[in-house]
Amino acid sequence: MSTFGTLFRVTTYGESHCASVGAIIDGCPPGLPLDSQDVQTQLSRRRPGQSNLTTPRDEKDLVHLQSGIEHGITLGTPIGLLVKNEDQRPRDYSETDLYPRPSHADWTYLEKYGVKASSGGGRSSARETIGRVAAGAIAEKYLKLTHGIEIVAFVSSVGKVKLPSTVSSPSQASSEDDDIVEDSLSPEFVNLLKTVTRAQVDAHLTRCPHPETAERMTKRIIRAKEAQDSIGGTVTCVIRGVPSGLGEPVFDKLEAKLGHAMLSIPATKGFEIGSGFRGTEVPGSKHNDPFVSKADGSLGTSTNWSGGIQGGISNGEDIYFRVGFKSPATISQAQETVQYDGTSGTLAARGRHDPCVVPRAVPIVEAMASLVIIDQLLIQNARKTASSLLPTITTLPPTMVKPASSA
Amino acid sequence: MSTFGTLFRVTTYGESHCASVGAIIDGCPPGLPLDSQDVQTQLSRRRPGQSNLTTPRDEKDLVHLQSGIEHGITLGTPIGLLVKNEDQRPRDYSETDLYPRPSHADWTYLEKYGVKASSGGGRSSARETIGRVAAGAIAEKYLKLTHGIEIVAFVSSVGKVKLPSTVSSPSQASSEDDDIVEDSLSPEFVNLLKTVTRAQVDAHLTRCPHPETAERMTKRIIRAKEAQDSIGGTVTCVIRGVPSGLGEPVFDKLEAKLGHAMLSIPATKGFEIGSGFRGTEVPGSKHNDPFVSKADGSLGTSTNWSGGIQGGISNGEDIYFRVGFKSPATISQAQETVQYDGTSGTLAARGRHDPCVVPRAVPIVEAMASLVIIDQLLIQNARKTASSLLPTITTLPPTMVKPASSA
Amino acid sequence: MSTFGTLFRVTTYGESHCASVGAIIDGCPPGLPLDSQDVQTQLSRRRPGQSNLTTPRDEKDLVHLQSGIEHGITLGTPIGLLVKNEDQRPRDYSETDLYPRPSHADWTYLEKYGVKASSGGGRSSARETIGRVAAGAIAEKYLKLTHGIEIVAFVSSVGKVKLPSTVSSPSQASSEDDDIVEDSLSPEFVNLLKTVTRAQVDAHLTRCPHPETAERMTKRIIRAKEAQDSIGGTVTCVIRGVPSGLGEPVFDKLEAKLGHAMLSIPATKGFEIGSGFRGTEVPGSKHNDPFVSKADGSLGTSTNWSGGIQGGISNGEDIYFRVGFKSPATISQAQETVQYDGTSGTLAARGRHDPCVVPRAVPIVEAMASLVIIDQLLIQNARKTASSLLPTITTLPPTMVKPASSA
Amino acid sequence: MSTFGTLFRVTTYGESHCASVGAIIDGCPPGLPLDSQDVQTQLSRRRPGQSNLTTPRDEKDLVHLQSGIEHGITLGTPIGLLVKNEDQRPRDYSETDLYPRPSHADWTYLEKYGVKASSGGGRSSARETIGRVAAGAIAEKYLKLTHGIEIVAFVSSVGKVKLPSTVSSPSQASSEDDDIVEDSLSPEFVNLLKTVTRAQVDAHLTRCPHPETAERMTKRIIRAKEAQDSIGGTVTCVIRGVPSGLGEPVFDKLEAKLGHAMLSIPATKGFEIGSGFRGTEVPGSKHNDPFVSKADGSLGTSTNWSGGIQGGISNGEDIYFRVGFKSPATISQAQETVQYDGTSGTLAARGRHDPCVVPRAVPIVEAMASLVIIDQLLIQNARKTASSLLPTITTLPPTMVKPASSA
Repeated sequence: MSTFGTLFRVTTYGESHCASVGAIIDGCPPGLPLDSQDVQTQLSRRRPGQSNLTTPRDEKDLVHLQSGIEHGITLGTPIGLLVKNEDQRPRDYSETDLYPRPSHADWTYLEKYGVKASSGGGRSSARETIGRVAAGAIAEKYLKLTHGIEIVAFVSSVGKVKLPSTVSSPSQASSEDDDIVEDSLSPEFVNLLKTVTRAQVDAHLTRCPHPETAERMTKRIIRAKEAQDSIGGTVTCVIRGVPSGLGEPVFDKLEAKLGHAMLSIPATKGFEIGSGFRGTEVPGSKHNDPFVSKADGSLGTSTNWSGGIQGGISNGEDIYFRVGFKSPATISQAQETVQYDGTSGTLAARGRHDPCVVPRAVPIVEAMASLVIIDQLLIQNARKTASSLLPTITTLPPTMVKPASSA
Repeated sequence: MSTFGTLFRVTTYGESHCASVGAIIDGCPPGLPLDSQDVQTQLSRRRPGQSNLTTPRDEKDLVHLQSGIEHGITLGTPIGLLVKNEDQRPRDYSETDLYPRPSHADWTYLEKYGVKASSGGGRSSARETIGRVAAGAIAEKYLKLTHGIEIVAFVSSVGKVKLPSTVSSPSQASSEDDDIVEDSLSPEFVNLLKTVTRAQVDAHLTRCPHPETAERMTKRIIRAKEAQDSIGGTVTCVIRGVPSGLGEPVFDKLEAKLGHAMLSIPATKGFEIGSGFRGTEVPGSKHNDPFVSKADGSLGTSTNWSGGIQGGISNGEDIYFRVGFKSPATISQAQETVQYDGTSGTLAARGRHDPCVVPRAVPIVEAMASLVIIDQLLIQNARKTASSLLPTITTLPPTMVKPASSA
Repeated sequence: MSTFGTLFRVTTYGESHCASVGAIIDGCPPGLPLDSQDVQTQLSRRRPGQSNLTTPRDEKDLVHLQSGIEHGITLGTPIGLLVKNEDQRPRDYSETDLYPRPSHADWTYLEKYGVKASSGGGRSSARETIGRVAAGAIAEKYLKLTHGIEIVAFVSSVGKVKLPSTVSSPSQASSEDDDIVEDSLSPEFVNLLKTVTRAQVDAHLTRCPHPETAERMTKRIIRAKEAQDSIGGTVTCVIRGVPSGLGEPVFDKLEAKLGHAMLSIPATKGFEIGSGFRGTEVPGSKHNDPFVSKADGSLGTSTNWSGGIQGGISNGEDIYFRVGFKSPATISQAQETVQYDGTSGTLAARGRHDPCVVPRAVPIVEAMASLVIIDQLLIQNARKTASSLLPTITTLPPTMVKPASSA
Repeated sequence: MSTFGTLFRVTTYGESHCASVGAIIDGCPPGLPLDSQDVQTQLSRRRPGQSNLTTPRDEKDLVHLQSGIEHGITLGTPIGLLVKNEDQRPRDYSETDLYPRPSHADWTYLEKYGVKASSGGGRSSARETIGRVAAGAIAEKYLKLTHGIEIVAFVSSVGKVKLPSTVSSPSQASSEDDDIVEDSLSPEFVNLLKTVTRAQVDAHLTRCPHPETAERMTKRIIRAKEAQDSIGGTVTCVIRGVPSGLGEPVFDKLEAKLGHAMLSIPATKGFEIGSGFRGTEVPGSKHNDPFVSKADGSLGTSTNWSGGIQGGISNGEDIYFRVGFKSPATISQAQETVQYDGTSGTLAARGRHDPCVVPRAVPIVEAMASLVIIDQLLIQNARKTASSLLPTITTLPPTMVKPASSA
């Protein structure tokens, strides 16, 4: 449904042509300094009309905070917010309304609800993501301020144009089935994950922080646009500074919650954490991340194939994952398909459309990541505080208990 | 936490060396014929000791149903069930307990809870999945009996040995950035998805229904075993016969729930639905699934890049997805790592371990798929029944309303 | 938190002096005819300024529907709505702000959140209930239209002035402990429960449908007002036409959900269903409701001490319950108390206040009742539809199975 | 359904004649010393056969802990537990099975589920409460150990035999509507709430800690038993030592959660907190609890009409509430009623039954109270820890911020 989260919850409403889209954020920690600008910054990164790579509509998307804040401080009560829709009228009937758009949500919404919005796929509209981004901006302000957590997403591929990330080392393969080529992350990409900033990401319109690849991505998108076609891509996201211990096995493992969150974003087709699908091909002896002793005496790992999560629980290393977005379904070129009533015909979609959504998806991925992390942090806080009040355990073998000094 | 589902819910308990592992299944439709054998069949497919490809322990894993059933019929009340652990004693201390196993959950469990089970990663044990498989067996019995829904998972890769699935057709590429090679599913693989049965899957110990590939997989696993190493793989799952309309946008889209479910299974690193990451590289004009009129007058699609889900809602086509499992963390060969206290050393794991988990993961993937589908089916049933009682809508343009005859 | 419901959910936001108060209603059945007036009617019954018995502020409380509806039909997607606050500025500092108001939420909000709204008790403001009433109006429109369910609440007492409801029949008591006086509902009150309408309730400003008692209630309220004091009361609510089978044992029994809903309304101190606390004094032989055969062949009960619920599940008889509201905490007369810093002093509350809230509580009680019933109806619909698809049960003794004809 | 709680959750299973009844407790703070005896103590207080006042079956009700504990310490993972049913066979058919027992759950279970257990009302069996009591015992061990919280319930009435609790002081009444008699709690009862122990409660078989009243209650129960009848009563519960700040407005206020919990116990008909329904008759000037400065510098209240909760949030004073239990529906004397098929007749119930359930309800009320308090404590812990990491607020007027020293 339209609520996400357990202790930090966002509930959203709104579709393309209604009065407004908005959200209620419940469970925000009280005492957080917050104003509209904190939210607007990410909303503006999400909105259309930022360049000729995205849809030319130039919506303002100004956020109006309604409640839960006084004198710039959150009260701990629900934060209501909304963004007005510029065009609030239900759409006029059009010849193209006879057709459900292929691979769009027109038909499935009608199947599910029996009615559908005049605008087509109803809540499948990209405007639905405004509430997510607004809520995420609030969450990440808290995470940054209290834990120094940094969440940075970037475009890692557009079609087959990919930001280079791995190096291959042929192993001592000898037969057909022995073709082991171990793909490690390249030192450059490891460094990128450790240091990349939003400013670097925004330096190029495609939001790829690798200038040479960004140029090639731009060309790929323009080519799709010129062909009245579309192209997909992937967004990679890194979360730095997450404390160890987040994630609630067995069903709410941290990667399961992140996967759920990402796969709820429109147009997503895949999610992988850490080594991901590539990791299925690397033997355990290589894939395992050896522990090392860190400067502060705590443990870390020397490699990070795990992507910062082991057993569904964060281990303090950087969390990174990749999300795949399909090529947008709405294209201007003619498509052979059938009408709702089964009549064959040709649909040529009206209007202007994003030939590629991944640049605009970057703040949405960041927002959903923020929402997962803050919720898991609050839940783990509850447990940790509760346990800290119990007497010291003296009856367990020492290897079964975390030393108090490392609490 | 340890509960999954909204209307059809499973809650599980148990780790490696406690008295038993078990589950409570709440919300099962009353009136379903059910006995132990329905559950045991899938449990036996999951248990270790089935072949020399898996761990040699030969646990019986006999299920004991406790409640919610009389005379072989479900009462609608919670079904309690348990499977006894053969070795119920907390483990003895061992030298290797000084080390958190690399990429295992020993350390993160200790970080999260402050204490951990003597067996190491506690609930990260594979025995935790028994409750899932039992619950899934109940769900799938209902789905099969009432809707003819078939859920079949199989091993699609072990390391780099892959069941062939795509054909590539070079397009009219002309420049470096134009290297479009469109990867479609091969007719053979499309046919496999449409017809594959559990009997075919189980015909080979690797649970790959493509004999030639299965042979190569076997060799790959044996090679890992001989090297005291491990290897990962992927499981593909197809769900046939799902009615249109399942999935609860915007946060509980069907692929988001499936992704959540799959990524909660131990050792998973990735999830992709339909065309998945491959789909990010295919232009919209090709990736879109055109609608066609089916024999019964309803709409279907001629291709299925979407994987049976559009806008987060099932469209009646086959749902298929792929799950990536990393190479098992527990290996017998020596690993350089550090102890809990930071001391460097060498860990050589005790015991015997699965060199590859994907064959045993097959029924677990099927179980989690069943749990998602039945829960979403119940939720959509609630809506559909509720709407069916409302008066016929006469005030909306015809393209906004589903014709009553197609209800 | 601020979300209520499982399949039909309302989430609210807003306090006294923020920009607006509002709600998101998620899970409304699609296809329901709905416009602002449906919601406004109940909001207007709730708003202050309706008479000299309530607070003299005359707020407009006009609802603005934002989403989820087109051409007067619900789409099944979330319905956003809001009501603007007339005075949106945080309040100025006042001498009385040094004092937490006795029995108000000023102090506990500060203890809980560490910060509080300038208006005092934040979300404990009566304006918080606007979102509930709006959501309830939508729910009850559905219930009325599809099931003919009628929900009518009325004021049953103000202070010690009580709408007469019982008759006592002394039993053959013989000793001190044998003082059994069996209090049955009077035929007049039973008839009132069966027939009372909102028009009858609204015919008197106190919302008591018993004119003579209503007069006495008015006097009691005026006396409290003149004494710069306040007085409490009770609201009785009847729900007619609820189908049998609603309620989800064991934790979500229908009375438990109703109790939860009612006790979440500001100023409530008690809840009783059917015979309630009175029923604890009546022997089982009298308290039991004998079954009778109804005209349509189904079973009913000849008495209704149960209040329409047995074993946590509705039995098709009228559901009735009573909710106790304490005397409002905010009074104008001086009170000896202490400041936040512990300094003793005298607080004389500023402003004008309701001397008695029960007349305005009537639509709030109705709203919360609607929200419980629709949610439970949807959940039971899911189960019933699911079960109806299963094969006829032939293996159970006949008394364990509901005959198909009575489905 | 059969799960209760958000962060500390219990899920139960089992009915009268299945293999066992049991529960899974999820979210228990790790590091808690716990063994079977902690649970058994409360289970034994709940079990039948304790005296000739209750049902003569003498079930052992021995608990078997399955998981989540090693070496007597909780691991933070789910705790599975079960109690075997002595008679595990589905019941034989009996003449009385033709009749749904009046005011029992036989008929509503059949209406809801379409099938029912041979034992009649399925989960409405008192054995269902075993899982609650076991879970509550774990919760209260934590609450006692870490916060010194004491939860004591006792029987406050049986039929019309009541533990004396109030004193009345006639006010300056002058007319019919002025009949104000202010009922305050008597000093003796206030003292009882402050000091009563479980040992005092258990000193008499009726579990009423007022010996003279306990004697009269015994006689009343025996009289009901001799008449083959039954009688109801009330249980009062006090929770001492709860920190301020618990409860989650607006829908999950502390009294709403307590009410939900109590009204989910079989046979309950009413719940009131603090002054309850009596408080509706007391003017605000008297009902308000003035604040006073406590020895430790914090604020308290000089009276406690509120019952320890204001605005849905605990204020640090004792929480007390009262729960009404109807007279048991199952009685041995003949009742005129109809069969499932509508045939009139006379039902004389088989077997032996509790003539009065309130003595055995005492530990169940305590258990549900424990479950509510620990869950709310964990949730508030999460918020408080989160807020404590934020910078000191300098931009709010001082009366809007809790001084850091009082944190």
